[in-house]
Amino acid sequence: MKKRLFTPGPTPVPEEILLRMAAPLIHHRHPEFRAMFRRIQTNLRYLFQTDQPVLTLTCSGTGGMEALFVNLFSPGDTIVAVNGGKFGERWVQMPRVFGITTVEVTVPWGDAVDSAQIVEALSAHPDAKGVVLTHSETSTGTSIDLERIAGAVRANSGALVCVDGISSVGAHELRFDSWGIDACVTGSQKGLMIPPGLACVALSSRAREAMAQSTMPKFYFDLQRALRALETDDTPWTPAITLLAGLDAALALIREEGVENVWNRHRRLASALRAGVSALGLKLFSRAPSVAVTPVWLPDGVSWKEFSETMKTGSGVTIAGGQGEFTGKIFRVAHLGYFDNLDMVAFVAALELTLQTCGYPLIAGSGVAATQAAFMK
Amino acid sequence: MKKRLFTPGPTPVPEEILLRMAAPLIHHRHPEFRAMFRRIQTNLRYLFQTDQPVLTLTCSGTGGMEALFVNLFSPGDTIVAVNGGKFGERWVQMPRVFGITTVEVTVPWGDAVDSAQIVEALSAHPDAKGVVLTHSETSTGTSIDLERIAGAVRANSGALVCVDGISSVGAHELRFDSWGIDACVTGSQKGLMIPPGLACVALSSRAREAMAQSTMPKFYFDLQRALRALETDDTPWTPAITLLAGLDAALALIREEGVENVWNRHRRLASALRAGVSALGLKLFSRAPSVAVTPVWLPDGVSWKEFSETMKTGSGVTIAGGQGEFTGKIFRVAHLGYFDNLDMVAFVAALELTLQTCGYPLIAGSGVAATQAAFMK
Repeated sequence: MKKRLFTPGPTPVPEEILLRMAAPLIHHRHPEFRAMFRRIQTNLRYLFQTDQPVLTLTCSGTGGMEALFVNLFSPGDTIVAVNGGKFGERWVQMPRVFGITTVEVTVPWGDAVDSAQIVEALSAHPDAKGVVLTHSETSTGTSIDLERIAGAVRANSGALVCVDGISSVGAHELRFDSWGIDACVTGSQKGLMIPPGLACVALSSRAREAMAQSTMPKFYFDLQRALRALETDDTPWTPAITLLAGLDAALALIREEGVENVWNRHRRLASALRAGVSALGLKLFSRAPSVAVTPVWLPDGVSWKEFSETMKTGSGVTIAGGQGEFTGKIFRVAHLGYFDNLDMVAFVAALELTLQTCGYPLIAGSGVAATQAAFMK
Repeated sequence: MKKRLFTPGPTPVPEEILLRMAAPLIHHRHPEFRAMFRRIQTNLRYLFQTDQPVLTLTCSGTGGMEALFVNLFSPGDTIVAVNGGKFGERWVQMPRVFGITTVEVTVPWGDAVDSAQIVEALSAHPDAKGVVLTHSETSTGTSIDLERIAGAVRANSGALVCVDGISSVGAHELRFDSWGIDACVTGSQKGLMIPPGLACVALSSRAREAMAQSTMPKFYFDLQRALRALETDDTPWTPAITLLAGLDAALALIREEGVENVWNRHRRLASALRAGVSALGLKLFSRAPSVAVTPVWLPDGVSWKEFSETMKTGSGVTIAGGQGEFTGKIFRVAHLGYFDNLDMVAFVAALELTLQTCGYPLIAGSGVAATQAAFMK
C-alpha cells in the first residue's frame, strides 16, 4: 500500500532530496563542503529573513533550544516562558534545570498567548533577560501573533525575544530582523522537509552580545565556538554531512518557490483542510490555528486506536494523536513542508473512508468537495 | 574521476546503506520504528560485546563524550584523563568546563599510555571517580592496551573506566563486559560505516548507578531519560531516523561478517598498508599503531599542500593531514570501516603516483607489491 506521512515531524522528504542525501559523502574539512556550507548559510538567512548568522547544530530541535538557554543566559538569571502546550511546557522545565529562574505564563491548550499577558509578566519581573515563545505549538496546532508580541516585548523591556520556531519556520510568516527577534530555533524534520537530526539557530547581534556575558558551562552546544568556526565556513565538531546536503537541496527548493509563496501555500492548505474537516461535522481543536498542523476533536464514539489504525491499514496514512490530557481525544494532521493542494484532498478522502469504517455517519465526498471548493474559490 | 575517501571519519558508506537511508521516512513513534530500534539495540550490544544497554544519541562523538561527563560525574568530582593527542586533549578540557577536577596524564603524541602511568595517577588521586581513555587516538593513529589498562584500573580503584571508542568500535577488538569497561562512546561515521550524526553510548551497571548520584545539570543529554525511553524502544527527543535506518543496515553487515572477523580484517589491512608504505621508504608516525588509521611522516622535500592536492586531483583520493604541531608534517590514511584488501593496494598505488609527482624517488610498484605480498603471506 502506498504510504503517506501526515505527521508534524518527521514530514515527507522530496524524492530529489532523498537521492541527494544518498550521494557519496564529501569530507567536512574540504573545499566542496565549505562551498556547500556557504550556500546553506546564504539560503538560511533568506529563509529566516535575516542578515544575521544562522547556525546549524547536529541535534534535534530540543538540543537547539538547550543551546539557546545555555548560551544566552547564566545561572540565576530570570526569564519569562510561555506554556501553552507540550513544547511550551518543555521550555519552562529545561531552563530551570540549568538554574535559570523561569517565570511561567500559562495559557490553556489551544489558546494563543497575547501580548498583554507577556507585557504583564515583564512588568512583574523587570529583571527578565529573555522571553521564550513558541511560534507554532505543535501539540495544540496553535500559533501566536509573533510580530505583535515581539514588538510589545521590545517596546516594554530589554529582554531577548527567543522563539521556538521548530514547526513554524518554512511554514508561518516569520521575519527575524524586521520583527525584532533575537534568537530562533528550527528543526530539520519540519518545514525544511528533511529528516531529523539538525537544528538551525538564528542569532541577533543583541543575542550574540548576551552570549559573551553568559557564565553557563557548555561545550558541545557552545555557540560562540560555532560562530567562530562559521567565519571559515566550518563547524567545531563533525557535522551531520548527509543531512546538510539534504538541507542544501531543501533550501534550493524553498528559494525557487520563494519564501512568501511557501508561507501562502501553508495558509491555503491549512484553510482548505479545515473547510473539509468542518464540512464533515468535525470540530477543530485550536482557537488560533497554526498553518503547520491541524488538531481535530475525534467525534463521540470514535476511538483513537481504531481511528489511527484504520487510517494506517485502510489508507496508508500516518497521523499524530493528542498529547498530554488530550491523548485519545484529538488527532493531528500536518500540512507542514512538502505538501500541496492534492495532498489535502487525498487526506480528506482517507479521513472520510476512515470515519465511515469507524461508524461515523457522513455523506461520502462532502469533505473532499468542500476542500476542493476552498481551493477553487 | 572516481573518488575515494581514506579519511578517519567520515568513512565510505556502503551503497546498500546509502540506498537504505534514501527510503521514505518512517515515524519514530510508530511500531515499524520500534521494531527497528529493538533490532539496533540487540546488534549494538553484540558490537560492543555487552549485555548492557547501548544508547543512541543524535549528536557527534563529542556530544556523546559530553553526555558521559555530565551524567556520570558532578561538579567538584575528580577524574583522571589521558592526553596523548587532539582528542585526548579535548577530554581533558571538556570535563573542566563542567567543573570536574581533571587530572591530566600526558603522553607524547604517537606513544600509548601504559597501565603503570594510570595506576600512579590513581594512587596520587585516590578520590578519582573516573578514568578517561582514548582507545584509538585518531589524531596520532595510536591505540592503547585497553584490556590491560581497564584491568589495572579495576584492580586498583573504584574509578569508572570511561572510553572514547570513537575510532575503535567496529575496528579494534573491544569487549565491554569482559574487560570491565563502564562507559564507551562511538560515533556513526567511523567503524559503523554510516554518515556522521549519531553517537552510541554503552553503560555498565556501575555507570548507571553513578548516574543516579550525579548533580550535574543536563537535559538534552540526560541519559537516565534516554534509558527510561529505551525500555519501550523509544527515544526522549526526535531521533535522526534516517541515520538509525543506516545504522540498522550497517549492524546487519557487521553481524553477517562477524565482529571478530571485522577486528581481524582491520588488523590485516593496517598491517599490509604499513608494509607497503614502509617498502617505499616512508616512516610510520606511531609507536603503538592503531588498526583504524595510519599516520605517516611526509618525506623531506614533499609539502603537505602539494601532496594532498596531487592525491586528490591525480588519483581522486582524499586523506587527512596532521593536527596540532604535526600539521603539514604527516599524512593520515584510514582503513576504518568499509575497506578491504584491494582498497589498500589501490591506496598504495595512488601513493606511489603522488610521491613520484612530488619528486620523491621510488621504484614503481614496490609499495603495491609489498602490500600485496603481505596479504598473500
